Amino acid sequence: MTIVDVARHAGVSTTAASKVLRNAYGASPAMRAKVQRAIEELGYRPYAAARGLRGQTYTIGVMLPDIRNPFFPDIIDGITGTLRDTDYHVLLGPSCDNEKDEAQLTDAMVDRGMDGLVLIAPVMSQARLERLAKTVPTVVVGRHARSAHFDTVTDDDTTGAELVVDHLAELGHRHIAHIEHHETDPARLAEMPNAVRADGYRKAMHARGLEVDIVSTSYTQEGGYRGAQQILARPQRPTAIFAGADIVAMGVLTALSEAGLSVPEDISLAGYDNTNFAALGPISLTSVDQAGHHIGTDAARLLLERIADRTRPAAQIKLSPTLVPRRTTAPPR
Amino acid sequence: MTIVDVARHAGVSTTAASKVLRNAYGASPAMRAKVQRAIEELGYRPYAAARGLRGQTYTIGVMLPDIRNPFFPDIIDGITGTLRDTDYHVLLGPSCDNEKDEAQLTDAMVDRGMDGLVLIAPVMSQARLERLAKTVPTVVVGRHARSAHFDTVTDDDTTGAELVVDHLAELGHRHIAHIEHHETDPARLAEMPNAVRADGYRKAMHARGLEVDIVSTSYTQEGGYRGAQQILARPQRPTAIFAGADIVAMGVLTALSEAGLSVPEDISLAGYDNTNFAALGPISLTSVDQAGHHIGTDAARLLLERIADRTRPAAQIKLSPTLVPRRTTAPPR
Repeated sequence: MTIVDVARHAGVSTTAASKVLRNAYGASPAMRAKVQRAIEELGYRPYAAARGLRGQTYTIGVMLPDIRNPFFPDIIDGITGTLRDTDYHVLLGPSCDNEKDEAQLTDAMVDRGMDGLVLIAPVMSQARLERLAKTVPTVVVGRHARSAHFDTVTDDDTTGAELVVDHLAELGHRHIAHIEHHETDPARLAEMPNAVRADGYRKAMHARGLEVDIVSTSYTQEGGYRGAQQILARPQRPTAIFAGADIVAMGVLTALSEAGLSVPEDISLAGYDNTNFAALGPISLTSVDQAGHHIGTDAARLLLERIADRTRPAAQIKLSPTLVPRRTTAPPR
Repeated sequence: MTIVDVARHAGVSTTAASKVLRNAYGASPAMRAKVQRAIEELGYRPYAAARGLRGQTYTIGVMLPDIRNPFFPDIIDGITGTLRDTDYHVLLGPSCDNEKDEAQLTDAMVDRGMDGLVLIAPVMSQARLERLAKTVPTVVVGRHARSAHFDTVTDDDTTGAELVVDHLAELGHRHIAHIEHHETDPARLAEMPNAVRADGYRKAMHARGLEVDIVSTSYTQEGGYRGAQQILARPQRPTAIFAGADIVAMGVLTALSEAGLSVPEDISLAGYDNTNFAALGPISLTSVDQAGHHIGTDAARLLLERIADRTRPAAQIKLSPTLVPRRTTAPPR
């Protein structure tokens, strides 16, 4: 079945039917209705056909570092919300948190002809990111990279970490430990949101003359659990823990609960991302809101612009975080 | 670049290179190594090429009702774990919870040439499910449907609900309310896991001579919050709530906490799915384990078998749930 059959069934010219399918200027509402009816009656699949005709698949690939982190659905909601009234579909590539998985997934997405990619906190090299972005329109989320070939949407992670340290210090805490996502690669240390967040913590602690105390695990529930256990095994227990992500704080809470410690009575705890989990009644976690929905909206908008015009100058959007104080932080005993 | 270039670069015949690419019988390990090296050195993309040659895309589409429900990552882990050593990639279609979104997403997946589909708790009609399954190998997860054309993997939701009612009744509860996912369509009432779960609750309550008390919202955090508010607004408060899913229990906890009620002192609470969230220290939610990882493993295995042999008889796998009692359930005051 081709557009010729659709046009014949609709009783319009092939040119007119094509205009409707391309959402082109100059197709009247009546014409659109006729062609849409014919498409439905015939069960015609314009996108499948369009792929052959124009090389587009109307598919946006989104690469996720972790499907268990409750922050990412906020970003995805922003992306799907922005694309809702377009012809584009979002397909997610789940749980890539290392270069090999990322390479396989992004290769697969390119091979499947995706029209654009949103990469959330990718760890691959800048060279690979650029190669990818030259092949297919790409927006990078979270990572503080800069390139002429892809757009970025980031949160000001330095400021976010400072907000947490300032909040805890103003409550009277002097010994504030931080659980970070382990990172050794120099480029990632400069660019990954987790590393920038740890750096913001370091700067804020130095600025207040406080000693830095960092535990390196991962941005997972398990990483939070292990991190808290390491912290609790020390001779001197901190009075507050700044977990680099809410998902990390989830693991910390379990470890503290197992150790018989109360939050915030025995120890204060702050997370990052302001997920639904943080807002949950019995948790009520102090966190940093980096506006995930807004990040997703901006990423999708930039991607659509780049798909429409591959030569447009690259944009870097940086959003400002805000602190959301809740019940897990209080003055130390 | 074609397979001819790969064969030339590897110094083997085109037939031999093709055998390696098809994973066909009769290619020696040495031959495989040579061809693999040539593929890497040339940056050749066998899958992209294979699509054209053999009509396969090596892509499995997974349809998710909700990316925020922490149960689904367990299923996805099972699927991706099983597919890890194959050539298949998993792409997720996020948050389909109505027939229109499902139709759009599954059409999109078919149009993009996916080799197989895993549909998690689809709400579409049986007729549409069968049409889809005749077009592309399909495994349905969660929904208690039966067809000659697709395989199913379900949890014994009736038994799961009975386990919860029995547990609460044995603790001494007589007034046990249930929060269900609202459902009106007759086919869905018979087949959707949420409806079967509500039915299991009804049967177990009747069997014990207890009065049924059901609130209909949705299997979301918001649905649990609203459901609990409705329950608390009643003249007689139940002594226990059975939330149809852990995500629902999350919302219930927030509403109870806002109302100043303690769990389990003022009211007991049980969930369903035994998610990471349920196991979390400060939550410690009594729940039903339906072995999400196992469900995913079985679904992926069935799908691979069906892709290999479209004519094999349809299989229905039903898994048995177990109760995981934790701290949110206790005898009533």
